[in-house]
Amino acid sequence: MFVIITYDVGEKRVSKVCKKLRAYLRWTQNSVFEGEITKGNLMKCLNEIQKITNPEEDSVYLYQVENPYHIQKKILGQEKGFDELFL
Amino acid sequence: MFVIITYDVGEKRVSKVCKKLRAYLRWTQNSVFEGEITKGNLMKCLNEIQKITNPEEDSVYLYQVENPYHIQKKILGQEKGFDELFL
Repeated sequence: MFVIITYDVGEKRVSKVCKKLRAYLRWTQNSVFEGEITKGNLMKCLNEIQKITNPEEDSVYLYQVENPYHIQKKILGQEKGFDELFL
Repeated sequence: MFVIITYDVGEKRVSKVCKKLRAYLRWTQNSVFEGEITKGNLMKCLNEIQKITNPEEDSVYLYQVENPYHIQKKILGQEKGFDELFL
């Protein structure tokens, strides 16, 4: 499936959350990650994120689309996170 | 259709872009907007955004899903932008 994950977490936790998401998804812009992922890995990823975030303060949004063909992406202006394509 | 729009624009243009997107979509978190929108309004919205952004520096990402039933949203922790529901 294809997912988009956006986060708004306390400053102290930003780099931890970012690092964790990078292990599973592609960074695109600010606090936004995207990519194809299996259900198993998504569960694993979310479990790990839950362990390092504070549910009272932090906010993590997950948008998921079962069939990646059902979602289209368009970019106006610059494509950020471009270097990620070569990792 | 359902869309998610994320932006990373120069500081001077943030409030303009935010205000414009608010006219069409729901703010959810940081620089992320979402919502159902018609094709016509989406085109109008993107045209307006293009006029107030700098394509050399700014970056606006659009994710679109024709059928809103094809996308699911889940929230870990706090739901930000909650007050928007009552506007």
